[in-house]
Amino acid sequence: MKLYTTDYAPNPRRVRWVMAEKGITDIELVQVDIMKLEQRTHPVIAKAGSPHLPVLELDDGGVIAESVAIGRYLESLYPEPNLFGHDAREIADIEMWTRRLEQRLATPLMLGTRMKAAPLVILEDPNPAVGDYMFENAAAYCIGLDVHLADREFITAGRLTIADIACVCAFDFARIARFRPDKSLENVARWLGALRERAKALEI
Amino acid sequence: MKLYTTDYAPNPRRVRWVMAEKGITDIELVQVDIMKLEQRTHPVIAKAGSPHLPVLELDDGGVIAESVAIGRYLESLYPEPNLFGHDAREIADIEMWTRRLEQRLATPLMLGTRMKAAPLVILEDPNPAVGDYMFENAAAYCIGLDVHLADREFITAGRLTIADIACVCAFDFARIARFRPDKSLENVARWLGALRERAKALEI
Repeated sequence: MKLYTTDYAPNPRRVRWVMAEKGITDIELVQVDIMKLEQRTHPVIAKAGSPHLPVLELDDGGVIAESVAIGRYLESLYPEPNLFGHDAREIADIEMWTRRLEQRLATPLMLGTRMKAAPLVILEDPNPAVGDYMFENAAAYCIGLDVHLADREFITAGRLTIADIACVCAFDFARIARFRPDKSLENVARWLGALRERAKALEI
Repeated sequence: MKLYTTDYAPNPRRVRWVMAEKGITDIELVQVDIMKLEQRTHPVIAKAGSPHLPVLELDDGGVIAESVAIGRYLESLYPEPNLFGHDAREIADIEMWTRRLEQRLATPLMLGTRMKAAPLVILEDPNPAVGDYMFENAAAYCIGLDVHLADREFITAGRLTIADIACVCAFDFARIARFRPDKSLENVARWLGALRERAKALEI
């Protein structure tokens, strides 16, 4: 299998993080230069029906896109450590938290960054009003997240899951548009600090 | 089990549609009056950690929120007809399409409607600039969707899946903010017309 990826975007990083946690080393990484818009003309990416990264190419030539869909597929092939849930109930709980945090936090952070960060102008028409709205909503959600994390090391299930990975990648991406969670949110800072150290140790 | 729901929102409707397709009749529907903001104070909804519908309450008192997470959980209990995929590869494909269409179409339609529709002012601070941006992006995505649907009756897998259900509920919700896909998009119109008839026949 091959993963079409780029070092400069949050969604491909989510998949590389899943791979690093699971110790997957037999998937070839193929860099795509998004600043040269290679993703819009690449024939393998075109097969997935949408000009976005990441894309996983299977050995039979089939493709899977969307970071969480790729991650769930990789979990079926490399079950441990478990990142998506051991049974139907836990799978539902982890999906609930992943989607909720994406909807209220990670997607607003990523969209806000795309609308506000000058280096991304080649990829998007910036719209600062939309960017401000997204960052204001993400900042407000961080307050609730801080309460949730008061007695928790991870978002849910008592261990690292795709919910943590999805959010941390968004927070890191939003740094380029100078988004920071409010300094008073000590639980968010602790959680984010620990996971950034973990990502650093895993080199993703 | 009990489903906390409202007849006036797109995400609870997704779950009721999943239930109707699977012929699930043993889950009690509990109406929550969102225009009276009951979802913000209801003790069962509070257990889910976020004041939004739908919420599924299990017989042991546990709760699952987020429409797609609830739908996937219901599929584990009521496997037929299959809406989320039969094996890892099909599950990944259906999740890819569901997430892509939510990101580019359904969420922009739902957020745009919340930002623009006068009756929703009790729930949201309207932001017409954000609403316009969302509707413009959704309208642009419909052009690609029309090409995708040229030779397809459903979004993927050759049958109805959660990807179709998620999108149709968003298109229907956006009617209250007067969003319509461009009339020239005949494949979108055909797909949407057929699924609206199906939903009508199933009374959801």
